[in-house]
Amino acid sequence: MKIAILGGTGEQGPGLALRWARAGEEVIIGSRQKEKGEKVAAELNEELGKALLRGTDNVSAAAAAAVAVLTVPYSAHVSTLETVKQQLKGKIFVAVSVPLDPENARRVIMPTAGSAAEEARQVLGPDVQVVGALQNVSAHLLRNVHAAIDCDVLVCGGDKDARATVMQLIERLGIHALDAGPLEAARQIEPITALLIRLNILNKVHSAGIRITGLPEK
Amino acid sequence: MKIAILGGTGEQGPGLALRWARAGEEVIIGSRQKEKGEKVAAELNEELGKALLRGTDNVSAAAAAAVAVLTVPYSAHVSTLETVKQQLKGKIFVAVSVPLDPENARRVIMPTAGSAAEEARQVLGPDVQVVGALQNVSAHLLRNVHAAIDCDVLVCGGDKDARATVMQLIERLGIHALDAGPLEAARQIEPITALLIRLNILNKVHSAGIRITGLPEK
Repeated sequence: MKIAILGGTGEQGPGLALRWARAGEEVIIGSRQKEKGEKVAAELNEELGKALLRGTDNVSAAAAAAVAVLTVPYSAHVSTLETVKQQLKGKIFVAVSVPLDPENARRVIMPTAGSAAEEARQVLGPDVQVVGALQNVSAHLLRNVHAAIDCDVLVCGGDKDARATVMQLIERLGIHALDAGPLEAARQIEPITALLIRLNILNKVHSAGIRITGLPEK
Repeated sequence: MKIAILGGTGEQGPGLALRWARAGEEVIIGSRQKEKGEKVAAELNEELGKALLRGTDNVSAAAAAAVAVLTVPYSAHVSTLETVKQQLKGKIFVAVSVPLDPENARRVIMPTAGSAAEEARQVLGPDVQVVGALQNVSAHLLRNVHAAIDCDVLVCGGDKDARATVMQLIERLGIHALDAGPLEAARQIEPITALLIRLNILNKVHSAGIRITGLPEK
C-alpha cells in the first residue's frame, strides 16, 4: 500500500518509514521542503541498504498515497492539514499528533473539537476518512527497527473499513492493533501520551507504552 | 492498617473490602446510613465465613481509620467529602472516583480543578494527603475475590510516603501498583476509565484494564 508520511522527517516519521519499508509497503516521506524530504529518504535508504523509500514535499506525497500519516508536533497539525486537504480527498488520514502542553509535555490541552483527531476531521471534511492511531507508541522504540514493541496501538475512527485498513498497517509495523471504535475515543487515547511521557521521565526511559488487559482472545 | 471504605456499599466497595479483609487488613465499610453499612458488612462477613468487617456511617468510619477510600459515583464525590472533611485530617485519602459523563460513560467531563483527585484536594485542604488510585481497575474483577487481576494501578499524589503506603495497600489486593508521581497525573489517569468502559462495551466484557509496558524491572 502507498503510504505518505507527512512531516516525516521528525521524531516519529523515520521509524514508521523504515518499519513499513522493511515490511514491503511503499513509503513516501513528505516534508515542507522537497529537498528535506529527499535528504531524509536518502539517509534512510542508506540505512536500509536499498532504495525503498522516496522523499518529496508534503503535497506531492499526499497526492501520491492511498493512506497519509501526519507526524508533526501538534503546533503544526492544523496548518499542515490545510496544505494537503485537497490531495487527501477520498483517502485515509491517520491522526497521530497529541495536543501536549508546549510548556509541560506531561499535560495535554485538548482542543475544542474534543481531540486532535476530531479537529483533523473538522479541517479535512467528510471526504477524508480520519483514523486516530499510533499516538501512544514510543518514537524511540519505533526508530530502533530491531526492537520488539510490547504495546497496543488503539485505533479509532468513524469508518469500520478504514479502521481495519489502518489496523493491518499497524500490524505490519510489528505492533498489536486494537479496535477502539469511533473517532471520539481519541479524547481518551491522546492524553495517555502525556501520562507515558511522565512515566518515561520518572523512570528515566523512553520506552513506556500501554497494553489493554482483560479482553477476549481474538 | 485500618481502612475505611466510604460509600462502600456500591459497586467497587465490597470487592475492595473482601480483598483487604482476606489479606488481614482491618476494614470498616461506611455508608450514608449506618444501617446500610452494617447490613452490607454482615453480608460480606457471611461470605468470608468470619466476622472480619464492620459497617457504620461514613463519618464514624472516617474517624476510625488511618486511610479512607471513597467509592461513590462522581456525582456524590464532593458532597460526601464535605461530610467527612474533619474526620480525615492528618490521614490519607484515596480518590477513586472518575468524572464520567452521566449521559455517556465512554466520556469524561473533567472538573475545573483538573481531575476528581485534585478537586478532592481542594475540598479537603492541606491537612489531608490525597492520593489518586484504583480508578482504572475493573469493579467486576475486584468483586470476584478469586480472580487474578492482570492490570496496573497507577498511584499519584503529592506526598511520596503517602503514595508508598497506598501502593502497599494496592499490592495487598493482589494488584500491581505503579508510582505515577504527583496528583495532577490523575488528569490523564481518570479518563482512561472511560476508554476501558468503551472497550468493555465493544468487546462485551467487564474486565478491561491497562498495563504499562517498557518500564525497567523493579
